[in-house]
Amino acid sequence: MVIILKNTAAPQQVGELIRWLEDSCKVKTNLVEGVHSTIIGLIGDTLHMDTEAIMANDCVESVQRVQEPYKNANRKFHPDDTVIDVCSRKIGGNKTQIIAGPCSVESEKQLMETAIACKQAGATMLRGGAFKPRTSPYSFQGLREEGIKLLLKAKKETGLPVVTEIMSLAHMDMFTDVDVIQVGARNMQNFELLKELGRCDKPVLLKRGLSSTLEELLMSAEYIMSEGNSKVILCERGIRTFETMTRNTLDISAVALLKQRSHLPVVVDPSHATGLVKLVEPMSLAAVAAGCDGLEIEVHCDPKSALSDGAQQLTPKAFCGVMEKIKALAGFMGKDVDEA
Amino acid sequence: MVIILKNTAAPQQVGELIRWLEDSCKVKTNLVEGVHSTIIGLIGDTLHMDTEAIMANDCVESVQRVQEPYKNANRKFHPDDTVIDVCSRKIGGNKTQIIAGPCSVESEKQLMETAIACKQAGATMLRGGAFKPRTSPYSFQGLREEGIKLLLKAKKETGLPVVTEIMSLAHMDMFTDVDVIQVGARNMQNFELLKELGRCDKPVLLKRGLSSTLEELLMSAEYIMSEGNSKVILCERGIRTFETMTRNTLDISAVALLKQRSHLPVVVDPSHATGLVKLVEPMSLAAVAAGCDGLEIEVHCDPKSALSDGAQQLTPKAFCGVMEKIKALAGFMGKDVDEA
Amino acid sequence: MVIILKNTAAPQQVGELIRWLEDSCKVKTNLVEGVHSTIIGLIGDTLHMDTEAIMANDCVESVQRVQEPYKNANRKFHPDDTVIDVCSRKIGGNKTQIIAGPCSVESEKQLMETAIACKQAGATMLRGGAFKPRTSPYSFQGLREEGIKLLLKAKKETGLPVVTEIMSLAHMDMFTDVDVIQVGARNMQNFELLKELGRCDKPVLLKRGLSSTLEELLMSAEYIMSEGNSKVILCERGIRTFETMTRNTLDISAVALLKQRSHLPVVVDPSHATGLVKLVEPMSLAAVAAGCDGLEIEVHCDPKSALSDGAQQLTPKAFCGVMEKIKALAGFMGKDVDEA
Amino acid sequence: MVIILKNTAAPQQVGELIRWLEDSCKVKTNLVEGVHSTIIGLIGDTLHMDTEAIMANDCVESVQRVQEPYKNANRKFHPDDTVIDVCSRKIGGNKTQIIAGPCSVESEKQLMETAIACKQAGATMLRGGAFKPRTSPYSFQGLREEGIKLLLKAKKETGLPVVTEIMSLAHMDMFTDVDVIQVGARNMQNFELLKELGRCDKPVLLKRGLSSTLEELLMSAEYIMSEGNSKVILCERGIRTFETMTRNTLDISAVALLKQRSHLPVVVDPSHATGLVKLVEPMSLAAVAAGCDGLEIEVHCDPKSALSDGAQQLTPKAFCGVMEKIKALAGFMGKDVDEA
Repeated sequence: MVIILKNTAAPQQVGELIRWLEDSCKVKTNLVEGVHSTIIGLIGDTLHMDTEAIMANDCVESVQRVQEPYKNANRKFHPDDTVIDVCSRKIGGNKTQIIAGPCSVESEKQLMETAIACKQAGATMLRGGAFKPRTSPYSFQGLREEGIKLLLKAKKETGLPVVTEIMSLAHMDMFTDVDVIQVGARNMQNFELLKELGRCDKPVLLKRGLSSTLEELLMSAEYIMSEGNSKVILCERGIRTFETMTRNTLDISAVALLKQRSHLPVVVDPSHATGLVKLVEPMSLAAVAAGCDGLEIEVHCDPKSALSDGAQQLTPKAFCGVMEKIKALAGFMGKDVDEA
Repeated sequence: MVIILKNTAAPQQVGELIRWLEDSCKVKTNLVEGVHSTIIGLIGDTLHMDTEAIMANDCVESVQRVQEPYKNANRKFHPDDTVIDVCSRKIGGNKTQIIAGPCSVESEKQLMETAIACKQAGATMLRGGAFKPRTSPYSFQGLREEGIKLLLKAKKETGLPVVTEIMSLAHMDMFTDVDVIQVGARNMQNFELLKELGRCDKPVLLKRGLSSTLEELLMSAEYIMSEGNSKVILCERGIRTFETMTRNTLDISAVALLKQRSHLPVVVDPSHATGLVKLVEPMSLAAVAAGCDGLEIEVHCDPKSALSDGAQQLTPKAFCGVMEKIKALAGFMGKDVDEA
Repeated sequence: MVIILKNTAAPQQVGELIRWLEDSCKVKTNLVEGVHSTIIGLIGDTLHMDTEAIMANDCVESVQRVQEPYKNANRKFHPDDTVIDVCSRKIGGNKTQIIAGPCSVESEKQLMETAIACKQAGATMLRGGAFKPRTSPYSFQGLREEGIKLLLKAKKETGLPVVTEIMSLAHMDMFTDVDVIQVGARNMQNFELLKELGRCDKPVLLKRGLSSTLEELLMSAEYIMSEGNSKVILCERGIRTFETMTRNTLDISAVALLKQRSHLPVVVDPSHATGLVKLVEPMSLAAVAAGCDGLEIEVHCDPKSALSDGAQQLTPKAFCGVMEKIKALAGFMGKDVDEA
Repeated sequence: MVIILKNTAAPQQVGELIRWLEDSCKVKTNLVEGVHSTIIGLIGDTLHMDTEAIMANDCVESVQRVQEPYKNANRKFHPDDTVIDVCSRKIGGNKTQIIAGPCSVESEKQLMETAIACKQAGATMLRGGAFKPRTSPYSFQGLREEGIKLLLKAKKETGLPVVTEIMSLAHMDMFTDVDVIQVGARNMQNFELLKELGRCDKPVLLKRGLSSTLEELLMSAEYIMSEGNSKVILCERGIRTFETMTRNTLDISAVALLKQRSHLPVVVDPSHATGLVKLVEPMSLAAVAAGCDGLEIEVHCDPKSALSDGAQQLTPKAFCGVMEKIKALAGFMGKDVDEA
């Protein structure tokens, strides 16, 4: 950590600051006096130090971290890729997982038809929302517990492991048989929920918040990991920008950056990110080319009757076409779609 | 609601779409054929209609709402300002509330000293975080239940009503004696929590999410109100932009826009928005000039020893100076600081 | 175009508005009266109409365009891909152009060494900045006219066509022998420059502005095209967001969207977008997978002595490695790198 | 300047870097070795150093500036407010300038009527666009030279000094008699134009770019000042965010930040920023409360017939009402509207 002092800093203030750093914060200091400004370099473990508290000193101009504030999620300390096992399918390493299914679970018929079609097209896991975070209280809120039961039924039918979103720690009990628990973008910084998930041993698919930096995403992973659960799958799902043609802007560079900074697997959700069916194929291919470990794609047996997000859900037929291209490109990139 | 059709739309597709709209969605339609494009105007209550489902039709280019999607929070249907009573202090109308106190409750001594100083300077309500949403799991997480007890003690001592943040619906019981429950930016779309708060009868101070549109803020208010609790206070606290000099960009235009679109009171938090002590005064005055109903300002008896956000907390002395100017300006604007 | 009226609109105001639209704006109108709001659909050519002028009517709530505001750049009116010939290399169609070279032209030695290395690695065109838009007036501003002479010398030496940036219409004469004139992000809306370029017959590589929507990029292309020059190459080069790990956020979805909306070729600049050498390979591959027609990549014979943007320029050796992968992927995608 | 080294940096690499810094860059270095990372503090004048060139060294993790990169515009080196004289009106100090007039000059009648009305309402300077930067080539582009002649005629009639926008250095000759030359948001980084303006002695009103940081705005001011012209007026006019209710988000905190960092006067344009007539009053008052030195407000004698931006232009009557409140608030804040 580096502290930059104001050029009006009095020697006495600086002395007090240094004493406080060494005595209370237990770090060594190194004073570097420049022509226009003076800095203090801190030596020691600064992970638990609060930059804001340092900033509150009158003589401090700014404070800059040198070390990343995450440890468990940091590739520096864990050079090898984390590979997570989900019912003997692997997320991470040289496998590509295709998590497909409807935005929302709407009925037994809708889910079964869609799940079977996804399986036939080559999907390796089943997604489907039982609890739906909707902007409007007047929109369909999901079948909730009933939706989870239907997902488990579809798993039985198809053999596909199930990924579904949790919206509150009050619902944890309902997720006992779910294979991967998803945390949505709006809950990426629901820290009480993250801590609770850190205390279970299920894989957690953690979506990047709508305007979260990648460091914040890694810090949210750190919340889960610091409680003991290291099975975290990171998910890029688009960030909010000024562009209006798409719902969000899918940040493909996040894939490469996260893989460089962290050992955790990274999946991409092109459906929610763009909100447009016709972007799912090119964005899926781009994500695979950038090195992602999986994709989460929305498929619906009858998109125009969907109770949520109809515009971004592929028909089973369109999904088949996209799957062919994804499989071929994954193979070209030296990976393969993990059909377990 | 207006549906714009693709210029490749076949008459049969359009016919089917119109039948579906009239039969399943129970709205009347009006077809307008232009030279380059054709639109369908919908007549009827479209509040519960899903634009995405319409978009999923092959012949649809785009769908645009005409009506606002919020009703309870909408000034069109409730022309008069909502005034909320908190221990006989009024939020809304011609009063200005000054909610002051530390970022986090850290100890009895720290809270009492700060609360008394705030009261003396003219604050009308006490804020203080017992549950603290922190980006890092390694940062101070708040005193939690103990923090709430201390706040209630400070209330007893000073007579100031207490505002404090809830982070999970699992903690509702601890908030029984709190006067105003705050929902932080990161939980603005924690819909399960919002619904729960909609079922209690306490005032809720709802902060705008870091990258939330004003319409989304109003929709989150609608979640609370649609469950029966109409005591919602909206709070602008800065949005995330590319600017790096401040933590966030305080959107003062939100004050005027929210007051025009909604009847709910609007308060502004210049401390969190900017993260800089020296911006608290000018931004407080700007907010008052723009017509806000209150301010939430961080004050700490000893900012440089603060366990969180030291750089944005005023000393009691600095707060006194700011309060003088706020009171004078509020008076000039025809309002007054409500010292009950 | 659709006009949404306020629910307070008086019949007389609406009548006047309709008369003004029909008489002055020469469009037909169609009134659709809903329960909560009334809209007017306009029938006719609305390309030249100003939405703001309509908004200035007291009875108007909002105005929404139905038709895209661009015509020459619009794929609807030109279904076939535009293919631009640059010294017999093709930009567009089934070719991939690799435009490589240094950020800035710094000296004859630096440029020649770099150009030869780029050629050997398989680059198909040479880039290099003679005029450099730098944030600081104290940074290197480019060799200017001398830089262009060196580029033309390097073209003679290597046979690679030359792409270089113009910063002012006052410099047009110096660009007579340049093969492709580049307009940088900061000049994307320098409309006087765009019009001037529209009057010449050289290919123009138009970079998306730092915070420009794709529609604005297409409108800037329209400025050039409406003056008669249809040889416009669109370039995605990253947009400004809140993320701090990269300089900008490369918007790969722009590739697919621009190709869908427009017939113009689209190239991607991963070097400027990310500002990081280690992201150039994954982002290049992602762009190719998403369907781009070319890449602009920065290469420097000695990056750490570069006078600008050293951190994002590949060494010739690193560029060779990236080129191998790009060629292979382009082939896999059914395109080939156009070595003329 | 502080250089943070990678934790994989070899001693030999670090030695080479230090030699290069001391020998080629002429700065002294100070090595600080921490537990997890090592930093180099640079001592000397680093204003001309390129952080990117340093980043290109393999052993460098990141580089951080300590000193602001602007000098002429920096309050640290010029503690007193700059006050600019425009025909004996003062911009800066304890005066508030109200620059009012139409978005575009459309005709003699329109301009004269509007100018006289502005003067009567208490405006102190006249604005009006002769050259208009429009997103679409099909929109009204301004009366150009003819527009400037009309502005000068209006000046003669009303005595109000004239502010108008330049779009190209090719037009400099036409601006000889203009009192303040405005640089629009889209040209904030048209560096060739800025340098040219730095060589004239007219006041320049420099608008913040749509997605420019405040530091970039100050660097653009530095371009003008480093060529010799120190009469620069900074203008906040809204930044681009994800919010859709307003055209841009007016950043009122920019006023306070710019006044703290720089000695240059700061004006605010609430009309363009918001694009909404009904936000002009609250945002004008907020800007005055935050300490601005002036406002630029659009007024049109007949907004609904305006050829550009009708929705944001006040009628003369509405402007009168706003002026009353601005004058009163400026007085309350210890400033006065400078009617010369």
